[in-house]
Amino acid sequence: MTQTQLRFGILGCANIVRKVSRSMLSSPNITISAIGSRSLEKAIAFASECQFPESTKLYGSYGAVLDDPDVDAVYIPLPSSLHLHWAVLAAQKKKHVLLDKPVALNVGELDVILAACEASGVQFMDATMWMHHPRTAHMKEVLSDEQRFGQLTMVHSVFTHMSDEYFLKNDVRVKPDLDALGALGDNGWYAIRAILWANDYELPNTVTAFRDPVYNDAGVLLKCGGSLNWYKNGKVATFYYSFLSNICMDIMVHGTKGNLRVHDFVIPFNEKVGSFYAVSDSKWTERSLGCDPEPSEVKVATDVPQEALMLREFGRLVAGVRSGEAKPETKWAVISRKTLLVIDAVMASINNGFVPVEVIY
Amino acid sequence: MTQTQLRFGILGCANIVRKVSRSMLSSPNITISAIGSRSLEKAIAFASECQFPESTKLYGSYGAVLDDPDVDAVYIPLPSSLHLHWAVLAAQKKKHVLLDKPVALNVGELDVILAACEASGVQFMDATMWMHHPRTAHMKEVLSDEQRFGQLTMVHSVFTHMSDEYFLKNDVRVKPDLDALGALGDNGWYAIRAILWANDYELPNTVTAFRDPVYNDAGVLLKCGGSLNWYKNGKVATFYYSFLSNICMDIMVHGTKGNLRVHDFVIPFNEKVGSFYAVSDSKWTERSLGCDPEPSEVKVATDVPQEALMLREFGRLVAGVRSGEAKPETKWAVISRKTLLVIDAVMASINNGFVPVEVIY
Repeated sequence: MTQTQLRFGILGCANIVRKVSRSMLSSPNITISAIGSRSLEKAIAFASECQFPESTKLYGSYGAVLDDPDVDAVYIPLPSSLHLHWAVLAAQKKKHVLLDKPVALNVGELDVILAACEASGVQFMDATMWMHHPRTAHMKEVLSDEQRFGQLTMVHSVFTHMSDEYFLKNDVRVKPDLDALGALGDNGWYAIRAILWANDYELPNTVTAFRDPVYNDAGVLLKCGGSLNWYKNGKVATFYYSFLSNICMDIMVHGTKGNLRVHDFVIPFNEKVGSFYAVSDSKWTERSLGCDPEPSEVKVATDVPQEALMLREFGRLVAGVRSGEAKPETKWAVISRKTLLVIDAVMASINNGFVPVEVIY
Repeated sequence: MTQTQLRFGILGCANIVRKVSRSMLSSPNITISAIGSRSLEKAIAFASECQFPESTKLYGSYGAVLDDPDVDAVYIPLPSSLHLHWAVLAAQKKKHVLLDKPVALNVGELDVILAACEASGVQFMDATMWMHHPRTAHMKEVLSDEQRFGQLTMVHSVFTHMSDEYFLKNDVRVKPDLDALGALGDNGWYAIRAILWANDYELPNTVTAFRDPVYNDAGVLLKCGGSLNWYKNGKVATFYYSFLSNICMDIMVHGTKGNLRVHDFVIPFNEKVGSFYAVSDSKWTERSLGCDPEPSEVKVATDVPQEALMLREFGRLVAGVRSGEAKPETKWAVISRKTLLVIDAVMASINNGFVPVEVIY
């Protein structure tokens, strides 16, 4: 086992593990060392279904994974109400932490997790896959090109999906004791992250929720949205997230000189190639009979899916820490924290009659 | 001169007349009978530049056009502060009224105009061209198809353009005494109309302006946006309009079963064909590795530009009135009035600290 080999333990048999473990298995530097479920039978069946190697240790508890000395890092896709407990414990057991979104129920909880990671000197990263698609870097280049895009003026982001009856009755994301943030912590996480990403993670001054939240009977948010304001430069952003609308994953970024649109930012329609659309210096044609140029499609190919690239980035950071050449990278913790700060503000705005809520780092 | 021949008088030499008159000249049933400007010299030069026929009467006042018995209808592209006076006078002189947007500075003014039209039995229509593009009807078919689109859940609309220094100093749309509504009355008119159109003109319960308006030194709005709420069914809409952002003319409509996007709704990129993008029943693929299907482009060709189709619709309605077979169609007046009601509410929200403002027809 070389230092560059990253041995993962997985907590739980969430659906998303089917996707992430596929990329773990195809990554040469990653081993799935262990998986734990509350039920050993479930872990056995799941490992078999996902074709984990025979060497993968199967446990009937999460704690056993954390106690395994052959586990360097844990992937935690548990319901968010369990993150505080298990992420802190993982850090205390000196495991690097790849934590699914929403990383915690609020910033207070996240700060406890981050403090535990810092105290143990382990790497923290959230598992927001689209951040690692090469398209995301390409889009950022366009947005950063002053000649092409000018100054950013507005961002609108949407992440919706239509839930079936089974989801609305049974999914952890609609259970107040499991994922209390509901659609805000799930789809909203991505939409808000997209806005922060486009704004180079400059936090807004205020966040105002729209006056239309929809809750389920248990009081969990199924749909809402809001607006963000940056007073200094007049920038604004809006976002919309919902479990009750056909799948949509759009970012529209407006600049003084250009626009950028992407229609599948969370999960590309096609695993091998992601598109976005950009246009610069749009002008009315003569007598305003038309508009020129039309937006152009930019295709970004990737042989490696975005979740594998996420694992690669996490592995790179962990390798630096393990070799002693680097301290844990705090960039991802800062980005997670800012995302959750905005989510906290959305909740505060809703709970206070949709007033604007200040965001303070 | 047959009854089906519509003889237009034009008030003023606004830029937009270059576009609209081109379609008047190419419409077999339309004659440009007269044009009036505050300066006869300007009218002469403009008529020459636009290649009006020699038979077009050129006047050094707007009033002379209204007094001309050879004028059946007037096209009024004057600054909106002049609409109340000239549209009322036109109606009183029994001229049918094609009125540019924003049709008035507020609903109170519009109601005076509409009352004058009703009293004289003349047709009223606003000159919102995209309403008449065949693409608009095609898009409405998609939105109305319950199997394909389900119930509408959310609409986002944007109309922005980037102004140069000349525009920001000199254009009538930034002058408080000419177009006091600024970007709200211009770009905002279209964005708000798009939302109402998508919602079958069902007025929202409340309108809330975003907290980020930008004004010029004279106090005219250059940029803002807002959100609309329908309490009964939880629908929401957002819009953004600006003179300070690269051209963008988007409508995104979300439904429980489908989405619809259009990127050039106000003025199509291409005069001969307008595209939109629709998708239904989007699903995650296996292991959520992708999303299927991708939106499809729908191309709608038109030999006749949307402004000519607008003139054709206006001509059709006027012909009905003139033949005595029909009363003036009130549909367009109702749509204009609803658009302006929302604009009034946006202004009221801004002026009252961005509170939600109720919209009552």
